[in-house]
Amino acid sequence: MVRALRRRLPGESIVYFGDPARFPYGTKSSDTITRFAVEDANFLLSRGVKLIIVACHSASSAALPELARRLPVPVLGVVEPGARAAVRMTKSNRIAVIGTSATIGSGAYEQAIRRLKRDVEIVAKSTPLFVPLAEEGWLDNEVAEAVARRYLAGLVDEGVDTLLLGCTHFPLLARVMGRVLGPTVGLVDSSEETAASAGELLAGQHLLNPGGLVRHRFYLSDLAPNFQTVGERFLGEPMGEVMRASVGEATEGKQ
Amino acid sequence: MVRALRRRLPGESIVYFGDPARFPYGTKSSDTITRFAVEDANFLLSRGVKLIIVACHSASSAALPELARRLPVPVLGVVEPGARAAVRMTKSNRIAVIGTSATIGSGAYEQAIRRLKRDVEIVAKSTPLFVPLAEEGWLDNEVAEAVARRYLAGLVDEGVDTLLLGCTHFPLLARVMGRVLGPTVGLVDSSEETAASAGELLAGQHLLNPGGLVRHRFYLSDLAPNFQTVGERFLGEPMGEVMRASVGEATEGKQ
Repeated sequence: MVRALRRRLPGESIVYFGDPARFPYGTKSSDTITRFAVEDANFLLSRGVKLIIVACHSASSAALPELARRLPVPVLGVVEPGARAAVRMTKSNRIAVIGTSATIGSGAYEQAIRRLKRDVEIVAKSTPLFVPLAEEGWLDNEVAEAVARRYLAGLVDEGVDTLLLGCTHFPLLARVMGRVLGPTVGLVDSSEETAASAGELLAGQHLLNPGGLVRHRFYLSDLAPNFQTVGERFLGEPMGEVMRASVGEATEGKQ
Repeated sequence: MVRALRRRLPGESIVYFGDPARFPYGTKSSDTITRFAVEDANFLLSRGVKLIIVACHSASSAALPELARRLPVPVLGVVEPGARAAVRMTKSNRIAVIGTSATIGSGAYEQAIRRLKRDVEIVAKSTPLFVPLAEEGWLDNEVAEAVARRYLAGLVDEGVDTLLLGCTHFPLLARVMGRVLGPTVGLVDSSEETAASAGELLAGQHLLNPGGLVRHRFYLSDLAPNFQTVGERFLGEPMGEVMRASVGEATEGKQ
C-alpha cells in the first residue's frame, strides 16, 4: 500500500502506523478489532494526518463504519476498491475472495461486490495460514505450495476466474498462488485501486499537496528484531527511521 | 497445562486467563511481552489466586524475573521444569529446543539447561509456523508434514535424541514431529513436570487445598467465534463458561 501510494502520490508525506504488539488482527473478534482500529486512528490523528487509509483488510472489514462515524478526517478502506477491481476483471462472473477469519467472517467483501454487481457468484474462503507463511518469508517453497494447494486447488473447478487477495500479506504469495491456480485465474491486489481512490478523494476535496518537502514517518507499536525486516519485505525498500508508538497501552496497574 | 494440573491437583480450583486479543506473544519483543504478562498477572491476582503458572513459554522466557520481583504470590514458569525433563531424558547429551522467535531469541532454555548440566550440546531453533498450524487444526496433514520436515529433518543427523517442545501449541503436533524424527528422538512436553513442580511448591508452602468445592473459571481477553473451539482442542475437554476479561485496555480516547 505504501509503495502504491508513493508511486501514485509522490507529493504526499505518509505517516505509517503498524501494530505488531497486537498483530495479527485477522484472528480477533469484530469488537476487539474495532477497538484497536479506533486507537490506531487516534494515534494517526495526533500526528496531524488529513486522510486515513485502513490498509488492513480485517480492520477495513470490521471497523470502517465506526471509524467513518468517529473521525474528523476522511477514511478509506481497501474492501470497496478491491471489490471494484475484481468486478472489473471477472468474465465468468465467479469471484473468489480469500482473507483472514475476521475478514471472511464479516461478509464485507460479499456485500461490497454485490452492491456493484448483483449477478456475480462469490466463493469466500478464509485462508489464515497464508499470513504467518508470508511473515516467515516462505513465499515460494514446498510448504507454501502445499498450503496454496490445500486452500485454492478447488477454485478452478468452481469456474472462478478472479481471486481477490483480501489481506495485505497475500500479494507476497502471488507467485505460488498463480502456479497452483494456473493461467485462467487472475489475481486482484487492491493496493493500486486504493491508492487511486486516495488520489481522487484528495483531489476532490482540494487536499492534494501542491509541493514542498516530503517526509515519510514509520511508527510501530512494538520493536522486535524482525519487524523491520518483515516490514521492508512488504514495502520493497528500506523503512528508514522507525519509531515506537505506545498505542493502546493501559496505565500501570490498571486492568 | 490445565489438563495436567487437574489430573495432578484435583483439589485445586483453576483460574485460567488466555489473551487472544493480543495473541500470539512469541513474535513480540521482550519488553512488550513483559508488559502484557504483568497486566495478565495483575488480572489473575484480582481473582484471588495463590500461585501463578506462566504456561506460555514466550512469557516464561521473557518475563519470569520481572513477575517474580513484582508479584506477592509465587510464580512458576515452564522453562525450568522443561529443561529438567529434557536433561533427564537425553542419553546422547544433545538436546534440541524449538519454540517461538521470542522464546528462542531469549536464550532462556539454553541457560536453564546449562545450569542443570554443563556438558550438554543444545540446538535451539525457532519454528514459528507450528503455532498457526496448530491453531488452524492442521495437526497431521501434508502441510504439517512439510513444515515439520523443513524445521526438524536435520536434527537427527546432528545426533539429537531429545526434542524439547518449547511452546504450548507444539504437543498438538507431536505425532507428525515424531514421524519426521523417527524413534531415536524423544519429545518433552513440560506440562507434566510443571504441574508436579506446582504441587511440590504448594505442599512446601502449606498452600494445598484440604478439600471442598472445586470451581474452574476461564477468562479470555477476546471472544471470537473460534477461540473456545481452539481452547478446547488444547484442553481436551469442554471449557464450560468462558468470560471476557478486559485486560490491558486503554481508557477511551487515551493514547
